[in-house]
Amino acid sequence: MIEEKVKKADRIIIGIDPGTNIMGYGILGIYGKKPAMIAMGLIELTKIGDHYMRLGRIYERVSMLVEQYCPDEMAIEAPFFGKNVQSMLKLGRAQGVAMAAALSRQVPITEYEPRKIKMAITGTGAASKEQVCEMLRRILDIPAESLLPKLDATDALAAALCHFYESSRPVVAKGASSWKDYIAKNPGKVKGL
Amino acid sequence: MIEEKVKKADRIIIGIDPGTNIMGYGILGIYGKKPAMIAMGLIELTKIGDHYMRLGRIYERVSMLVEQYCPDEMAIEAPFFGKNVQSMLKLGRAQGVAMAAALSRQVPITEYEPRKIKMAITGTGAASKEQVCEMLRRILDIPAESLLPKLDATDALAAALCHFYESSRPVVAKGASSWKDYIAKNPGKVKGL
Repeated sequence: MIEEKVKKADRIIIGIDPGTNIMGYGILGIYGKKPAMIAMGLIELTKIGDHYMRLGRIYERVSMLVEQYCPDEMAIEAPFFGKNVQSMLKLGRAQGVAMAAALSRQVPITEYEPRKIKMAITGTGAASKEQVCEMLRRILDIPAESLLPKLDATDALAAALCHFYESSRPVVAKGASSWKDYIAKNPGKVKGL
Repeated sequence: MIEEKVKKADRIIIGIDPGTNIMGYGILGIYGKKPAMIAMGLIELTKIGDHYMRLGRIYERVSMLVEQYCPDEMAIEAPFFGKNVQSMLKLGRAQGVAMAAALSRQVPITEYEPRKIKMAITGTGAASKEQVCEMLRRILDIPAESLLPKLDATDALAAALCHFYESSRPVVAKGASSWKDYIAKNPGKVKGL
């Protein structure tokens, strides 16, 4: 069933929500222009006491996911500003080992701030986890019962869906925030003006 | 020549000084109880503009070093407290990808704070890079000309040597800072008392 979904997909995006206690993942398949969930889950780390064993587990599990689902891209939920320097160093390491699993297999990475992901899915950057989950359920047509026990993994799936939306938008040049803006800034580049 | 040194070593320690602009490495061989330098060098990252390409390069190069020298252990210079949260996140990622290269090959990692490394090599935690370099030169009997152009790599070699010293000390139980202390805290564990 899952193998079929992977084979038929035009494009596969793996979403990762890295954490030092729990890491969520979501596998999104794109069929034509329609996104659909292939899989989602959690990598539990709380039972592993040793810091390096945790990092090793993240690397191992993300490597397995990359081998299994052959994603074309990776989307990571990545807050840039956190509580304190020590927790940021730990988060950076967790992100680093997850990224290494993608980079070693030439899977390009894009990161999104939590606010950006929430905005892309629900239309508001201040949405709750439950609101994101509910929107995901509707957009991707997922039965509620298969989402709820994995609430932490929905953030990862949301990152993948956010990446799909972002990469499907018409390409706008850097520094321009909209087409209107782009046209104003680059009159020569747009025909018919 | 280097192949011979690797083959003859009883134990090999790779030292890593991770940075987001430049990453130093040092390969230390242990022959009986005597440490000797096998190799040292720099991974230049400044010319790579893209953040992920940098992380990818670190992973790739550290993986190559691990394949080439088959180290038994990795020692990392790792400051726990840095300038600001964003630079700590970046440093954490650089450390994370370097660690992934070791963890994926079951190479155990130990990290040391810069002060600890300086203390182990020179006897003072406030030693300069040049002082550490000079002591390394004497202890490992390295010609001065082969060290100087790679001043940044000496920190990595120093981390490896620090790990050798630390791991060669008699094992003292956690919470005890010396043998005297250990005996006082665990009278039943030491025979003849």
